[in-house]
Amino acid sequence: MFRTIGIITKPNDPNSDKKAAELSTLLEKKNVSVVQGEKISEQADLIIVVGGDGSLLNAARTFVDKKIPILGINLGHLGFLADVPMSNMEEIVSEVLNGNFIKEQRHLLLCQIEQDGKVLGQYLALNDAVVHRADSLRMIEFDLLIDDKFVSNQRADGLIITTPTGSTAYALSSGGPIMHPGVNAIGVVSICPHTMSHRPLLVPGESEVVVHIKESDEGATVNFDGQTSVPISARQDIRLKQHESLIHLLHPQDYDYFEIIRSKLHWGAKL
Amino acid sequence: MFRTIGIITKPNDPNSDKKAAELSTLLEKKNVSVVQGEKISEQADLIIVVGGDGSLLNAARTFVDKKIPILGINLGHLGFLADVPMSNMEEIVSEVLNGNFIKEQRHLLLCQIEQDGKVLGQYLALNDAVVHRADSLRMIEFDLLIDDKFVSNQRADGLIITTPTGSTAYALSSGGPIMHPGVNAIGVVSICPHTMSHRPLLVPGESEVVVHIKESDEGATVNFDGQTSVPISARQDIRLKQHESLIHLLHPQDYDYFEIIRSKLHWGAKL
Amino acid sequence: MFRTIGIITKPNDPNSDKKAAELSTLLEKKNVSVVQGEKISEQADLIIVVGGDGSLLNAARTFVDKKIPILGINLGHLGFLADVPMSNMEEIVSEVLNGNFIKEQRHLLLCQIEQDGKVLGQYLALNDAVVHRADSLRMIEFDLLIDDKFVSNQRADGLIITTPTGSTAYALSSGGPIMHPGVNAIGVVSICPHTMSHRPLLVPGESEVVVHIKESDEGATVNFDGQTSVPISARQDIRLKQHESLIHLLHPQDYDYFEIIRSKLHWGAKL
Amino acid sequence: MFRTIGIITKPNDPNSDKKAAELSTLLEKKNVSVVQGEKISEQADLIIVVGGDGSLLNAARTFVDKKIPILGINLGHLGFLADVPMSNMEEIVSEVLNGNFIKEQRHLLLCQIEQDGKVLGQYLALNDAVVHRADSLRMIEFDLLIDDKFVSNQRADGLIITTPTGSTAYALSSGGPIMHPGVNAIGVVSICPHTMSHRPLLVPGESEVVVHIKESDEGATVNFDGQTSVPISARQDIRLKQHESLIHLLHPQDYDYFEIIRSKLHWGAKL
Repeated sequence: MFRTIGIITKPNDPNSDKKAAELSTLLEKKNVSVVQGEKISEQADLIIVVGGDGSLLNAARTFVDKKIPILGINLGHLGFLADVPMSNMEEIVSEVLNGNFIKEQRHLLLCQIEQDGKVLGQYLALNDAVVHRADSLRMIEFDLLIDDKFVSNQRADGLIITTPTGSTAYALSSGGPIMHPGVNAIGVVSICPHTMSHRPLLVPGESEVVVHIKESDEGATVNFDGQTSVPISARQDIRLKQHESLIHLLHPQDYDYFEIIRSKLHWGAKL
Repeated sequence: MFRTIGIITKPNDPNSDKKAAELSTLLEKKNVSVVQGEKISEQADLIIVVGGDGSLLNAARTFVDKKIPILGINLGHLGFLADVPMSNMEEIVSEVLNGNFIKEQRHLLLCQIEQDGKVLGQYLALNDAVVHRADSLRMIEFDLLIDDKFVSNQRADGLIITTPTGSTAYALSSGGPIMHPGVNAIGVVSICPHTMSHRPLLVPGESEVVVHIKESDEGATVNFDGQTSVPISARQDIRLKQHESLIHLLHPQDYDYFEIIRSKLHWGAKL
Repeated sequence: MFRTIGIITKPNDPNSDKKAAELSTLLEKKNVSVVQGEKISEQADLIIVVGGDGSLLNAARTFVDKKIPILGINLGHLGFLADVPMSNMEEIVSEVLNGNFIKEQRHLLLCQIEQDGKVLGQYLALNDAVVHRADSLRMIEFDLLIDDKFVSNQRADGLIITTPTGSTAYALSSGGPIMHPGVNAIGVVSICPHTMSHRPLLVPGESEVVVHIKESDEGATVNFDGQTSVPISARQDIRLKQHESLIHLLHPQDYDYFEIIRSKLHWGAKL
Repeated sequence: MFRTIGIITKPNDPNSDKKAAELSTLLEKKNVSVVQGEKISEQADLIIVVGGDGSLLNAARTFVDKKIPILGINLGHLGFLADVPMSNMEEIVSEVLNGNFIKEQRHLLLCQIEQDGKVLGQYLALNDAVVHRADSLRMIEFDLLIDDKFVSNQRADGLIITTPTGSTAYALSSGGPIMHPGVNAIGVVSICPHTMSHRPLLVPGESEVVVHIKESDEGATVNFDGQTSVPISARQDIRLKQHESLIHLLHPQDYDYFEIIRSKLHWGAKL
């Protein structure tokens, strides 16, 4: 099924290196080639991330346009995305190589920073794009537009634009709903909004979301998946829509989205 | 375009009767037939509701399978659904007859009450189905299942299963998000959940939601669009999915969903 | 220290009877008299409740004016109020008899139902008084007044008036804050308010809170500590203030309010 | 009644200067001395702030230990604190000079930054002290202690420690309750907490709140009334308690706290 597997480790993590070495040995025994670094995007037909949700988010943004499926081995607590526990690595990887897995597609957001009609930069996010005030003494003020229609003018600490995947990340801390990954929607969640009647908003996945920064003496930042951050100035626009390519996540065959939710959110398993 | 129009009034409301008479006169001048009562479902190719959101919800459940489009004249404050103000009735109805309108489809929920595999009743809802304790001294306990997968066991005052249309109704009072009508999803929102980590949940529109009542000494009720109510007992299941037929709502040509939201939720219009 | 102890059991609970018998034996060995039933209010200088928070709430309302301190043995999970685990009963009761305990005072609410200046009934609550719609198809509408000043007109499913003690009970499910028992305040929390900008409100403990029922076709109910319930009609007033007598709760010497909160709310204990 | 009045203007605001000049003329006509700048703290027996809530917060922190009462003229929209509308300045100031006013005391927080038992700095706040992550890519982790008792370990964007006065400011945007100024309590509200079961916490006004910064690669900041900001490092403590001196706020005689709340939060006034 998979002939060449790219392994991605967590930077500066000896445990990740150790597990990746074990994985390499395992794969080679099964006559599967292992590649790392720059060769991944050219040769790999499967990527295995040995890290956590953070490493997988990073890999997803990097390789989404190559359409290489991704499997995540989790070195620590169960992740929302990297859902193969380290202790089961050998067993589950073997199953995956035998074709026994669940494949699932997830949308990413494509975010474009614009000014006066000029594109200043393009960024991807599997979880979320977060516009945040740069200075903790000030709010930011922005207009929100959906498909070129004015939605609201807000003053807030920030704004989260989230995929269903990201709905269990930062958006959840700001009062957003849990969105099953099969929902084709984009979530827009304000962070500490000044107006109490603002509520999390869900728009169709095909929508184009624009955040127009109105006034922000000290500037604002936009960050992607909580991992990279770019400054944004007054009168710049942040334009977001679903990215054309989707990520193909592989899960163990007994994958159960709601079981992960229950476990991570401590809902108490069914007796 | 429309040759026979069914007029539905708000029961026991003289103002609705008066406005309906004016509308009748207007339509007859334009050589459009007007029908009322039982003839609507057989003859009408357009329904005009002269009332408010409540009257329109009722008409939608009644006529959805006839696929007759519905336009709502609002006698009072702007409605989420009945969005033609009384003062503009003549003008907008004329425009609609000239084919100048926006047509929008909305999903309804089909709700089945079941016990031991037997269907006890079937009900429709355009806004929401609300499972609620029948006695204010007790919580209800239920299991939530999505597509036959266990999601959670909850103790709460109740549970709201909502369409995007219903997301701005009762679900909003319980902390649910605003869902644009174009989002193909079903919302599940707990009312005063005992477990603080429960959050509104969005699942794909194609999902089947089952609420299994576990224990409820005094029984519970399910109500539909806040208009009809049926009792439900311990060990009965409430099974919900999108209804096959959709409602076709007509709106004035300048219809703007977000403008209605801003106005109803007092977000403050853009200057 | 304590010479005559009243034991209160949980009705219809054989386990409570069994534990109460053990407790009786223990007390008699220590030459302490044990009384039950009607003699408690006349003779007891300490009440021990063998049950849970519910039994203790009931005992508190019954005996508050006798100023007899109360200790709660918990038959099940740790309670907020009944905080002596069954397994430690012997040890902790012995300590209490030796004078080793923490004594804490808690306020109750005195609730008066009034119409046209006439008092229709008086009720006590250690946790909360909850005004709730009687019919799940309707909201109730009421005016809230604090010290005769108009605060707000609300439409909601209901309204919770809570002591600090009750802040971790029903009010918490409705979005209320946690109030340390040492805070001298009354909390007012709306249940599913129609207006999104309503928020939990804290007023000084000396305040008089009046809820004036405006309109409620089907009537409403007021319940106390989730245990007793009285109907209330349109144009009746619910007047609440702190009761003059306080409850004296006894706790084990290692009592730690925040430890109970952490444990009950699953905050994760400190490592 | 008042013989020497200190006038404080809003920096760099010509409108404030103009109004202050009008006020000066008015006061001199009434044979009241007017002082500005450094003389205020020595000579004034009343301070009039011509600005808004921000200017009044600043004046309160500066002059609280001098126990000079403060009246606030509001140049813009009605404020929570500066509640004399510009249009009524002459009339209300005259009334105040005649002794017709409501006097109200409000607590401030005294905040001490400590490390290894050494005090690094002391700050006052009338509204709130806000601990916030310094970098929008990271959460901060801290321990919360009340009166030296461990309450919780949290990871969050930040933490707000608020007076009742500040409960309608930033804390409200983060989900905190409204606390009437007469409540003797300190509010502790997490900003976007990682654990969903955390809730706003109210502790008695006499409590000592300590926030111990655990780990924060990039550091954090503490800001006071949203006006001044100091950096804080890992392993430093932020210790907060009520300041010994209270602010004496003067209000017009028809002052109604709840009317201001209704107006500011758009609750809809009673008809």
